[in-house]
Amino acid sequence: MKYIGNKQSFIDSKEKVTGKAKYLDDIVIHGMLYCKILRSPHPHAKILKIDTTLAENLEGVKAVITGKNCPNNKFGLEIADVTMLATDKVRYVGDEVAAVAAVTEEIAKEAVKLIKVEYELLPVVDDVFKAMESDSPLVHDGCKNNIAKEYHFSRGNIEEDFAECDYVFEDEFSTHRVQGLYMEPFGAIAKWEDNGRLTIYSGLQSIFQGRNEIAKALGIEPSKITVKAPFIGGAFGAKIWIRNFHPIVAVLAKITQNPVKIVLTREEEMLTTRPRVAPKIKIKLGMMKDGTMVCKQTNIIADNGAYSWAATKILMNMSIRTDCLYRFKSTKTDSYLVYTNLIPTSGFRAYGNSQAHFALESFIDICARKIGLDPVQVRLKNTVHKDYLTLHGWKIKSCGLSECIDAANKAIVKTRLPKEEQGGRIKRGIATACMTHVSGNRGGSKFDGSSAMIRVHEDGKVFVFSGEADLGQGAKTIFAQIAAEVLGVSIDDITVMPLDTDTSPFALGTYSSRVTTVGGKAVMLAAEDVKKQIINIAAEELKRPKDTLDIKDGVIYYTADDRDNISFKSICTKAIRTNKSIPVTSYISYDPPTIGADSTGYGDYSSAYTYGAHGVEVEVDTHTGHVKVIKVVAAHDVGKVINPNGVIGQINGGVAQGIGWALYENQQFKNGIPQSTGLHKYTLMTMKDMPEVESIIVETNDPVGPFGAKGIGEPTLIPTAPAIANAIEDAIGVRIKDLPITPEKIYRALNNK
Amino acid sequence: MKYIGNKQSFIDSKEKVTGKAKYLDDIVIHGMLYCKILRSPHPHAKILKIDTTLAENLEGVKAVITGKNCPNNKFGLEIADVTMLATDKVRYVGDEVAAVAAVTEEIAKEAVKLIKVEYELLPVVDDVFKAMESDSPLVHDGCKNNIAKEYHFSRGNIEEDFAECDYVFEDEFSTHRVQGLYMEPFGAIAKWEDNGRLTIYSGLQSIFQGRNEIAKALGIEPSKITVKAPFIGGAFGAKIWIRNFHPIVAVLAKITQNPVKIVLTREEEMLTTRPRVAPKIKIKLGMMKDGTMVCKQTNIIADNGAYSWAATKILMNMSIRTDCLYRFKSTKTDSYLVYTNLIPTSGFRAYGNSQAHFALESFIDICARKIGLDPVQVRLKNTVHKDYLTLHGWKIKSCGLSECIDAANKAIVKTRLPKEEQGGRIKRGIATACMTHVSGNRGGSKFDGSSAMIRVHEDGKVFVFSGEADLGQGAKTIFAQIAAEVLGVSIDDITVMPLDTDTSPFALGTYSSRVTTVGGKAVMLAAEDVKKQIINIAAEELKRPKDTLDIKDGVIYYTADDRDNISFKSICTKAIRTNKSIPVTSYISYDPPTIGADSTGYGDYSSAYTYGAHGVEVEVDTHTGHVKVIKVVAAHDVGKVINPNGVIGQINGGVAQGIGWALYENQQFKNGIPQSTGLHKYTLMTMKDMPEVESIIVETNDPVGPFGAKGIGEPTLIPTAPAIANAIEDAIGVRIKDLPITPEKIYRALNNK
Repeated sequence: MKYIGNKQSFIDSKEKVTGKAKYLDDIVIHGMLYCKILRSPHPHAKILKIDTTLAENLEGVKAVITGKNCPNNKFGLEIADVTMLATDKVRYVGDEVAAVAAVTEEIAKEAVKLIKVEYELLPVVDDVFKAMESDSPLVHDGCKNNIAKEYHFSRGNIEEDFAECDYVFEDEFSTHRVQGLYMEPFGAIAKWEDNGRLTIYSGLQSIFQGRNEIAKALGIEPSKITVKAPFIGGAFGAKIWIRNFHPIVAVLAKITQNPVKIVLTREEEMLTTRPRVAPKIKIKLGMMKDGTMVCKQTNIIADNGAYSWAATKILMNMSIRTDCLYRFKSTKTDSYLVYTNLIPTSGFRAYGNSQAHFALESFIDICARKIGLDPVQVRLKNTVHKDYLTLHGWKIKSCGLSECIDAANKAIVKTRLPKEEQGGRIKRGIATACMTHVSGNRGGSKFDGSSAMIRVHEDGKVFVFSGEADLGQGAKTIFAQIAAEVLGVSIDDITVMPLDTDTSPFALGTYSSRVTTVGGKAVMLAAEDVKKQIINIAAEELKRPKDTLDIKDGVIYYTADDRDNISFKSICTKAIRTNKSIPVTSYISYDPPTIGADSTGYGDYSSAYTYGAHGVEVEVDTHTGHVKVIKVVAAHDVGKVINPNGVIGQINGGVAQGIGWALYENQQFKNGIPQSTGLHKYTLMTMKDMPEVESIIVETNDPVGPFGAKGIGEPTLIPTAPAIANAIEDAIGVRIKDLPITPEKIYRALNNK
Repeated sequence: MKYIGNKQSFIDSKEKVTGKAKYLDDIVIHGMLYCKILRSPHPHAKILKIDTTLAENLEGVKAVITGKNCPNNKFGLEIADVTMLATDKVRYVGDEVAAVAAVTEEIAKEAVKLIKVEYELLPVVDDVFKAMESDSPLVHDGCKNNIAKEYHFSRGNIEEDFAECDYVFEDEFSTHRVQGLYMEPFGAIAKWEDNGRLTIYSGLQSIFQGRNEIAKALGIEPSKITVKAPFIGGAFGAKIWIRNFHPIVAVLAKITQNPVKIVLTREEEMLTTRPRVAPKIKIKLGMMKDGTMVCKQTNIIADNGAYSWAATKILMNMSIRTDCLYRFKSTKTDSYLVYTNLIPTSGFRAYGNSQAHFALESFIDICARKIGLDPVQVRLKNTVHKDYLTLHGWKIKSCGLSECIDAANKAIVKTRLPKEEQGGRIKRGIATACMTHVSGNRGGSKFDGSSAMIRVHEDGKVFVFSGEADLGQGAKTIFAQIAAEVLGVSIDDITVMPLDTDTSPFALGTYSSRVTTVGGKAVMLAAEDVKKQIINIAAEELKRPKDTLDIKDGVIYYTADDRDNISFKSICTKAIRTNKSIPVTSYISYDPPTIGADSTGYGDYSSAYTYGAHGVEVEVDTHTGHVKVIKVVAAHDVGKVINPNGVIGQINGGVAQGIGWALYENQQFKNGIPQSTGLHKYTLMTMKDMPEVESIIVETNDPVGPFGAKGIGEPTLIPTAPAIANAIEDAIGVRIKDLPITPEKIYRALNNK
């Protein structure tokens, strides 16, 4: 194949490296105003009075809104628990209280300072266990014990199975709030058009979902809104859903009759990015002497923060997916999502699956060591495999899990540094952890497919329309490769059109590592349909049967003698300009052959399941507790590589983000007050912390995905943290079960030992 | 029917009357520069030297281009005879010599004045007959006798037929240059996008044609350009094709890396609008005593002006169409298009057909009077009719010509004012003239259809995409009516999407009165296809056979019992969101069952042929020669009315523009210098000259057009001028054969009599 599987520079890389690519903040619309938002300084307080007089009188201020004079429709993903501006009370530090539109950003900022709010402080709910007590204050009135959502999943007879096990182990893990921390802060521009329609420019991962949510918040029909996404400077799942500022700028634009822009500051991002849901995870694992994992019971109490958005979905993923990594006989999970007065959580990259994998993949190492078995062998003994039906109904159509574990382990063993000196300060260790993830997820919606339109112009150039977003991960390039490969034309002749809900075919958006598998498949089918149309016309022209023709390098040729040919371009002109004209356009809706989960969580809801394993080597400074990741071997079953550049990029990025999560980043609170309000107070990993990454790509040629491909976006993050925790134990015999693994924790644990 | 045939306010009328509709000049893009063009003050001159130094040094000037430093690709419609800026010589007063982009319009204007051009004057070619002489200077080197194009059409044996006629009459007519004079001057904004693509905003009637022409002028691929048309403030056929300023602003935008706008001044419009081709038409008509018209021979010498654009097509129409109005036994036409150093001509509203009808329909009255027959009866005796095959191959599938003549005549006779007093100053007269026109024209291109896309959103709202332009005539409303009627939903649920070559389906554009017939038909077919998709899903839902369901008022119902129903909206949501998802989108390419004209001009090249007749009453002031049109009865065969508001609007407008052409407007020259460089020097008719107009709509239910409809845009202008000339003769016995019919000409003719 000419494009599939071959290294392809991203088709938009030139625009990006030359600084020409327009991100939201680069967009300036004539007459545009700037929005700033007044946010609550208190984690929990009643709003007694808001006085906006001074702000309104400031020169250059065009509108000031509060919860009293803007739509109060509640919105949210599964639970509608938020209004665009607080009406009665504030529920976390950062909650939106009032908003200003002014002619400059500076004036807007000044105006926000002039708004006077009287609060009555309320007791702060900042601990999930206390929040669940019957006498706890409620974050949302009427939400009993502050429980936003609970799940109870059970397969097999777990009581019986535990009773028959040789060993039953039990332990507790916890993970913390971390930020997506994409380079480009989130933002939006709202502009009301003269025909009464609303245009929102915003780097949303899901333009259609965003459109519906903004409509709900404003109380208007979705199709009255056009969402256009410019270039997106990273998103990682944290820009799938709208934020309060989306409807806020729409309201301000309506009042002022001018376009209104907001771009969050990094501080606002730190307050409102919706970091990972932070759970406490108890696991009980039943095993046999030979390492067979029989059954697993899990109990999760997850901190939702002040408002629920995708947190319910994240809890669901956390509760189910790791059950499908191994051939358990029975599993049982009870999980609770609990409101607190902390920053609302949601998720990014792996959406809950990372938290659950940290717990399970740490725990397997602990258990294997206890039994005296090699954790790698224990994993290999228990992995799911092709054609296996998991407890939750996943039908595994392709699976490279064993190959990934084996390859990652062998590579990390092979390249490990010499054992440190006996008694030396620096200790080294290696370990492996693995993962399973989805490529699409019908659980979230009745439709889990994607649509694509391919339009060929009369000059033979091909426009690809998809509603799936490119967050920087290279989706546009994947679509262009697929279209070029199927149509037999140069990738330079492909233009992937910008995202626009009016003209992009309907799509659910970029999440669940679904874009290549589902969006790419829709593009493939549309391209195949267009190819058929073109071959039909060429067959008439060349007077050859259709099935004897093919297309290569922009030429349609007779397969038995390629000198008998005609150019793709001339057939396109002919197709459009002759009086048997056809549009040479295909509009395809594709939905994978999957089954949405039922109320018990059972269903084969992903187009494909992905597998991977990371082998890690760490160095621990036993004097300081500092951990350095020396090397990560990342082996991933991607089905079939479409663009090696993209896959390697995802692996490097996922590993980096995984290390950051495991070792450095942490959003902390004191009495409900966030302590990490900027990057100076939030430790990010930097280039100097980046280990060598060896990527191993396992191809299993999935029968459903386009050309056999499966997703890779999220999987690369998942095994990193548990593999690091496991390698630390290998190095120094200390186990850290609550993330992040800070030098302090290691230092203390070493001292305790 | 709920919408078809019923008066429908234009769906964009609210935006227009509130001043919200954005026309080109309302668009302001951040960083936009303004372009002004230096034009030739000489009708014919060699460019010796251009010095742009002073202009370049003016503060605020960002770029100055001349023919030396911009692309020199020749472009044009049939004959590529023009470059965006003059290279060697200028050929008419107004020819583009240099262009400036500056930060304000004023600075650009100032800079243009600072450009010094040295010219060597050349002899001026300003008369078609002299131009054809062998010793005439050539407007374009190598173009022998300045003949840009010639046609020779012949059917039957005209020599024999003339020999057998009772009468053979011969006469000569001429028409003049007049302007489209739409309210909104033409213009464009060019903006190069960061991905190297070019966006052109311009109120073009044919966005795809414009795109190809701009590409040709710039030497780039068409699909690298996006043409977006904002609201268009009138066009009348004069904005179908690009002007030189389109590639000029693109070049300036490229150089400056800023968007560049130009909007022509009215003076520039007067110079470059490309007015009607001005022909001298000799006709010879063979008739029998009973009024039978046997044969017709025509000789046309038409003034093309300095560059050819659509003038060749206009000459073609002039040469053929009137032959198909009556049942001639034989016809012969020799016609020549001749270059001069006058303003380049092209056409608008009726595209040459108006000129030919003026000659023939004037001449029939003259001949009938000579024989002593009633001109109305002569017409009625000779009209074509349904199922008639004309000499040029038109297969007439619907024809209300006789009905129109009869109705117009009867109405004007019935309401005529009492005969003026004998010997009084004011004389009154009535007369009738008729016409035939096309609805589409395959002659111009191999494809003569249109495409449409209809997309239904999950909230049940319908988006209609067509590439056919609404110039103000109400095309968007027609499309919305058709879609609403077919889909059984409210017209308020229909949005007709803006014109954009990236997202609008391929279309030829608004000309040849084709938009309703061809564009509307494509919309109808797309709507029918979408309806089928929706009914299919509803059939499953309601558990009823598909063919027992229909849609009305947004509800899909069982036709045997309409209480068994489901909402259109819920089915759309279901269609898009369930896992048997379909896009509820249809992309249709429609081409009418017509045949392009062969090299002899033979072919059934229009989807439908339209007919009409105007009865006119005039008053002539015999002291001053002033003519006042008192009443026009306009009877038109429109096949089937879609929107009576639109038809009446077209009739009123066509009548007004026809009167202006007949009596007032005239673009005059003196030694090649235009004398009418502004509306103060160009007489337009005003409201006080507007007669009472009685509209008579004849419906013949064409078998091809949507719901039986045919075009109406151009026909309404055509019979006005000859009917006025005929009525003047009826009033005062004086015949004016060269337009316009000015008081001076009448006064002189009366004096000569």
